[in-house]
Amino acid sequence: MAYTYNNFNVTFPSQYVAQVEIDRPKKLNAFFEQMWKDIAKIFRELSHDPEVRVVILTAAGDRAFTAGLDVQAASENGALAKTGPVLDGARKAVALRRHILEFQDDITEIEKCEKPVIAVLHGVSYGLAIDMTTCCDIRICSADTRFSVREVDIGLAADIGTLTRLPKANVPMSWVKEVALTARDFGAEEALRVGFVSAVYESKAAALGKALDMAKLLASKSPVAVQTTKQMLNYSRDHTVADGLAQIAVLNAAMLQTKDVEDAMLSGLKKRKATFAKL
Amino acid sequence: MAYTYNNFNVTFPSQYVAQVEIDRPKKLNAFFEQMWKDIAKIFRELSHDPEVRVVILTAAGDRAFTAGLDVQAASENGALAKTGPVLDGARKAVALRRHILEFQDDITEIEKCEKPVIAVLHGVSYGLAIDMTTCCDIRICSADTRFSVREVDIGLAADIGTLTRLPKANVPMSWVKEVALTARDFGAEEALRVGFVSAVYESKAAALGKALDMAKLLASKSPVAVQTTKQMLNYSRDHTVADGLAQIAVLNAAMLQTKDVEDAMLSGLKKRKATFAKL
Amino acid sequence: MAYTYNNFNVTFPSQYVAQVEIDRPKKLNAFFEQMWKDIAKIFRELSHDPEVRVVILTAAGDRAFTAGLDVQAASENGALAKTGPVLDGARKAVALRRHILEFQDDITEIEKCEKPVIAVLHGVSYGLAIDMTTCCDIRICSADTRFSVREVDIGLAADIGTLTRLPKANVPMSWVKEVALTARDFGAEEALRVGFVSAVYESKAAALGKALDMAKLLASKSPVAVQTTKQMLNYSRDHTVADGLAQIAVLNAAMLQTKDVEDAMLSGLKKRKATFAKL
Amino acid sequence: MAYTYNNFNVTFPSQYVAQVEIDRPKKLNAFFEQMWKDIAKIFRELSHDPEVRVVILTAAGDRAFTAGLDVQAASENGALAKTGPVLDGARKAVALRRHILEFQDDITEIEKCEKPVIAVLHGVSYGLAIDMTTCCDIRICSADTRFSVREVDIGLAADIGTLTRLPKANVPMSWVKEVALTARDFGAEEALRVGFVSAVYESKAAALGKALDMAKLLASKSPVAVQTTKQMLNYSRDHTVADGLAQIAVLNAAMLQTKDVEDAMLSGLKKRKATFAKL
Amino acid sequence: MAYTYNNFNVTFPSQYVAQVEIDRPKKLNAFFEQMWKDIAKIFRELSHDPEVRVVILTAAGDRAFTAGLDVQAASENGALAKTGPVLDGARKAVALRRHILEFQDDITEIEKCEKPVIAVLHGVSYGLAIDMTTCCDIRICSADTRFSVREVDIGLAADIGTLTRLPKANVPMSWVKEVALTARDFGAEEALRVGFVSAVYESKAAALGKALDMAKLLASKSPVAVQTTKQMLNYSRDHTVADGLAQIAVLNAAMLQTKDVEDAMLSGLKKRKATFAKL
Amino acid sequence: MAYTYNNFNVTFPSQYVAQVEIDRPKKLNAFFEQMWKDIAKIFRELSHDPEVRVVILTAAGDRAFTAGLDVQAASENGALAKTGPVLDGARKAVALRRHILEFQDDITEIEKCEKPVIAVLHGVSYGLAIDMTTCCDIRICSADTRFSVREVDIGLAADIGTLTRLPKANVPMSWVKEVALTARDFGAEEALRVGFVSAVYESKAAALGKALDMAKLLASKSPVAVQTTKQMLNYSRDHTVADGLAQIAVLNAAMLQTKDVEDAMLSGLKKRKATFAKL
Repeated sequence: MAYTYNNFNVTFPSQYVAQVEIDRPKKLNAFFEQMWKDIAKIFRELSHDPEVRVVILTAAGDRAFTAGLDVQAASENGALAKTGPVLDGARKAVALRRHILEFQDDITEIEKCEKPVIAVLHGVSYGLAIDMTTCCDIRICSADTRFSVREVDIGLAADIGTLTRLPKANVPMSWVKEVALTARDFGAEEALRVGFVSAVYESKAAALGKALDMAKLLASKSPVAVQTTKQMLNYSRDHTVADGLAQIAVLNAAMLQTKDVEDAMLSGLKKRKATFAKL
Repeated sequence: MAYTYNNFNVTFPSQYVAQVEIDRPKKLNAFFEQMWKDIAKIFRELSHDPEVRVVILTAAGDRAFTAGLDVQAASENGALAKTGPVLDGARKAVALRRHILEFQDDITEIEKCEKPVIAVLHGVSYGLAIDMTTCCDIRICSADTRFSVREVDIGLAADIGTLTRLPKANVPMSWVKEVALTARDFGAEEALRVGFVSAVYESKAAALGKALDMAKLLASKSPVAVQTTKQMLNYSRDHTVADGLAQIAVLNAAMLQTKDVEDAMLSGLKKRKATFAKL
Repeated sequence: MAYTYNNFNVTFPSQYVAQVEIDRPKKLNAFFEQMWKDIAKIFRELSHDPEVRVVILTAAGDRAFTAGLDVQAASENGALAKTGPVLDGARKAVALRRHILEFQDDITEIEKCEKPVIAVLHGVSYGLAIDMTTCCDIRICSADTRFSVREVDIGLAADIGTLTRLPKANVPMSWVKEVALTARDFGAEEALRVGFVSAVYESKAAALGKALDMAKLLASKSPVAVQTTKQMLNYSRDHTVADGLAQIAVLNAAMLQTKDVEDAMLSGLKKRKATFAKL
Repeated sequence: MAYTYNNFNVTFPSQYVAQVEIDRPKKLNAFFEQMWKDIAKIFRELSHDPEVRVVILTAAGDRAFTAGLDVQAASENGALAKTGPVLDGARKAVALRRHILEFQDDITEIEKCEKPVIAVLHGVSYGLAIDMTTCCDIRICSADTRFSVREVDIGLAADIGTLTRLPKANVPMSWVKEVALTARDFGAEEALRVGFVSAVYESKAAALGKALDMAKLLASKSPVAVQTTKQMLNYSRDHTVADGLAQIAVLNAAMLQTKDVEDAMLSGLKKRKATFAKL
Repeated sequence: MAYTYNNFNVTFPSQYVAQVEIDRPKKLNAFFEQMWKDIAKIFRELSHDPEVRVVILTAAGDRAFTAGLDVQAASENGALAKTGPVLDGARKAVALRRHILEFQDDITEIEKCEKPVIAVLHGVSYGLAIDMTTCCDIRICSADTRFSVREVDIGLAADIGTLTRLPKANVPMSWVKEVALTARDFGAEEALRVGFVSAVYESKAAALGKALDMAKLLASKSPVAVQTTKQMLNYSRDHTVADGLAQIAVLNAAMLQTKDVEDAMLSGLKKRKATFAKL
Repeated sequence: MAYTYNNFNVTFPSQYVAQVEIDRPKKLNAFFEQMWKDIAKIFRELSHDPEVRVVILTAAGDRAFTAGLDVQAASENGALAKTGPVLDGARKAVALRRHILEFQDDITEIEKCEKPVIAVLHGVSYGLAIDMTTCCDIRICSADTRFSVREVDIGLAADIGTLTRLPKANVPMSWVKEVALTARDFGAEEALRVGFVSAVYESKAAALGKALDMAKLLASKSPVAVQTTKQMLNYSRDHTVADGLAQIAVLNAAMLQTKDVEDAMLSGLKKRKATFAKL
């Protein structure tokens, strides 16, 4: 697989580690329609690529992870633009609904990636930055990050996922509602305090370095264990404890049939490092 | 609409901002039956009042937001009082269940209000104070606030909502269980640390001032965007991510058909302030 | 009831307070199969024992709450051992699934205990330590505690409950995923900051002392109120708010028919201490 | 309680049996807005009236149970009428949503009635006839009944409950979709064959007679048993088996504390008739 | 395993086929407490017994499958009897709830049996007969069977499962409510018409013969395929389609790894009979 | 759009009516991998094609709707074939799971089609015939149809949807389990009696004729009304009544804003035929 896209760089900084870099820095990495189609495609490929065990999501340039939707572009093209035949309210709603569902599906591909995804945020991280990184597993950032749930300020209670996923990130609801309803900026320290990010580093470079360390660590472990763990944590978020336990019993009944268990147990007992086959 | 009630003051400190003040300070703003019927009615009216876009919930006097249920009154009248015919256990249970459902329904009107509700707590904030403010969207308080989930101490595992809503406020469960099972007091700083409140201010006046600032900010935004955002955040709390995404697609298919989107987009692009029609 | 077990000490340090001590300190309190069968049995008994109103879960020795599964023992016996006839993948899966379900059921008995359970962690608290204490209601620990969600490091995405219950403990998901996917150690302060534990004390002895104080406090309250509160908090975790409210209405319709309500109300009004009948 | 309404007759043909008759026969019992507000009020009262243990729902005249919504009236007044200020699509949607929710809530009062409701259909039974009777517990009809899920033919995928409740009536989905999508008429025999009604009688009079017999039978039984049974059957429809069992355990824990159990058991053993106290 | 019980005969009429016969014909096979404890134990054993692939549930004598709960015995012993200390309403409720949960758990063991269970009903089939056979997979009966959902007639809205499981048997809800609320008898033909039973035979002997034929057929198939099919059908009853599809994907990922698939495919292509290893 | 495929004929027998014919009659219309990819693509296109308002699904030749999976082909290629590297049980499970999920997603496209789909079955209708037609809205068949839930007989508890969707078709569970566990054939009359099909016609030609009549009828109605009705019926199947009502309120708030409502109301009042704009 080539992973060649106009506004994304996909690289492999270490064995089994892929890095996806949003690359439109002159426009603060703002997204237009082709970009969310592309990022969906990238994560769909990474999900099944046996050479990949962890993914880092970052963005080019110093100023922004992403400023979100490219409003200029959206007002000229796409479902919000004033083009095409005049439709009644219901027909317009059907067209919009189809458009929103496609947009959501594209962003959701990040969440559906079978491999863990580490988001490294920096600078301006607005709107889609939140939609996309609530689909990631682990979020860290640089000290200069400015976040904003931007939707109410562009007159939309839009939502390509933020309003649905943020209440499930286990960050306090009083805070979630405040930042979602006011669209105010919040910084790295506040994000850490409420638990939206797990760690803050002094610079983008430092954060990326730490992300790579963590990615290497994950890549050294049994991919069966790591990916099943991700699958179960996501499943549990949306199900009762009883359903979660039943699911893990079915899932592990297959997953424990891997040579990795034996290798890992032995390496634990004998204090030596195990290596694991691809998945 | 008049909004005239014996134990509540409803005022409008700024355009589109309503303020509901619990007003029975001599009794530490403790609630008797007519009061919860009244507060339900107030929030039902505010919910559809086109002149209102945000609501602040506060309480009169320096000593208490509310001390909770007026136990003296409850033991003399109402479902817990020893009056009326002697019933067998099942018949008593039917009567109690009807009573509890009505009480719950009244408090739930605060949550069902279509406009964002900001709770400003101070002083004694016991029992019903928690039931009511877990129905609010954003909670802030003054430094002197003393909270308590009071129910176990009046021999009740009562619950007009606290035991159901507190675990969904995304505050740590170990802490939730401790304060609910011990009925111990906790202060403003602790409430902030676990995320039960979003901010603490030095005095009730300061907290109210900040609430008014936030309310004005919310009132200046597209009411379509603000109210749809509230609706989706509440919906998401109780549904899976897949259901949340499907719901937002249906909801936004109608909501994006507002002139507010265009106005907000333009105001963003042209850096000027938009005004929005009533809702 | 005798409560006599080889690797557990069950004592009664105060009226209505039971203390369960894991007692295999030479092996860092690591668990083998008979031990999880025994702990299930203990909690099943405590759940209905009218002399018990609160349970403390602790472990013997200074070094460990528990190091988790005794891997040596597990590799020699049990479902992971290489013994018995060679089965095809599906038959092996059926056998493993039955084994996992039994193991889960045993650990779940801690959660199903009708009385509140306070976990006091110290030292090495790995793997099963997390599985078991996410079944407890309140978690506190000593300053020297080292936690680890250990499963990925023994090649298992195993899960006797941690992956299902940790996302429901209302601790930030980004952090949950990091510790579950990396299997890294984390300390007492970090556990407190994210809310996994409610409090940290300087030593195991201090933590145990505080746990006993809290247990005495809970034991002094109406057991009807305390146990119904626990029941509702657990129910709410897995249900919508609407379902939670309906459940509490049905439950309280019976529970309010206790003399404890009257006693507690009177003691509140008259400022004297109530005592409550067994349950 | 007086139960006096313009378009409804509420009578008491036998002890503990109430009969609600829709009474606008000249207009084929078609509904306008005041009528659904009234029927909601009637069922709310019946639900808590201790003199009532069963309700029969019928309609005046020979020609129709109800022809459904009075389209003429609806096109002149109400949410579908072209009156009031011109609103954008989103504001119109908010107004419509409020209107639909109120309409639904009114019809849902029939389902929320704590007493069993027996619907007796005859003649034209269109649109609202299905919405209302899917809220009833038992449906029987006369041989001349003509049913129709009418909504698609008035350009609405309206639904004040039919589309939501019909798939839960345990009648074959292939048939449900056919009648809902085609809006075709179907007769009494077809309704019986698929299970939408439980029985067909030769005339309205005969059907009413049988309904009264059944109502008397239900009225002679323990009201605790009858109403708890209804409550559980409705609860089970919307919950898993595990949740249903947990609910019945909590509910019966209170309900078995009735003298009715003892009386019914004794009457069974001694072959004599029991009478039961009001509820 | 011995399968020796006082009031049950467990036999093996054909290879891999077990038959459980309720054996207390002089008392119309009515159940007292030890009996439901025993039947739970029997099905728990059968569930994991590799010699068993199908179970038939029948009852001794010509007169009754079972008359249900032995009311005489229940009124003298057990939770409904008037013995022990006088408790307040809440404490009585706690005791009753524990008792009901245990009773439910015992009956639920029939449903949890991993092997298909065919119920063969005849004669009096009241109360518990419905509770138990709604836990079975397939229900057939003799022409003389008289069914009754008996609970309302003994003053109980009891329910050891009928009220929860009958609405999920996909039999028309209007009929379910009629038979549950009236407690009236219904016969074999009616049971067939609504789909509660799949077939009616002229006598108990004929029905048992047919059950044995069906059991032999099921026993000849791949036990992996048969048991996974049962598991998925039960899972789907209580989950959404999306959840069902996700579950089958995980489950089959393990189950397709059986030699049975290859054997069955080959036997299909080559038109010869396959035999399958134990499970 | 061209709709040109090797094994499918897509035609337009009437305005707004599309007909999809499975066309591999020499192999009894058995499916190989490319075919389920193609049928997914066809329904994805039809779903958004404004020229299409109804779809008929049929199959070429007299002998079979489809014999199901082409087992010969499946044993030579695809996930069940014995090719590629030898994997451990867990890695094999991951590969199988991905394969099953893709297969399921393809078949689910039939259900996700926004337009109503009428299935016309005839002759051999095995395995995939059930998987696919449980995704359709309305099922009718010819008198010679022989159905079979085939999976257990090819050693699979496979399931590309049948085991999940059949229990939700509101056909009796006792019958569902019998046909799923035995894999026995059943005929058209039995399918009608239990409600799996809505009607039986003497020949394939007659059934197709009736399907076309029904399709024309659906095509003549407001597409807004028809498609919203389908959407709600599918939504309701998987949600509680409360959720269904909330969803319809949101959905109709947009859908009632169509000129179709006015046109349909007027045509009803004035007894003339309305025509509706494309959707």
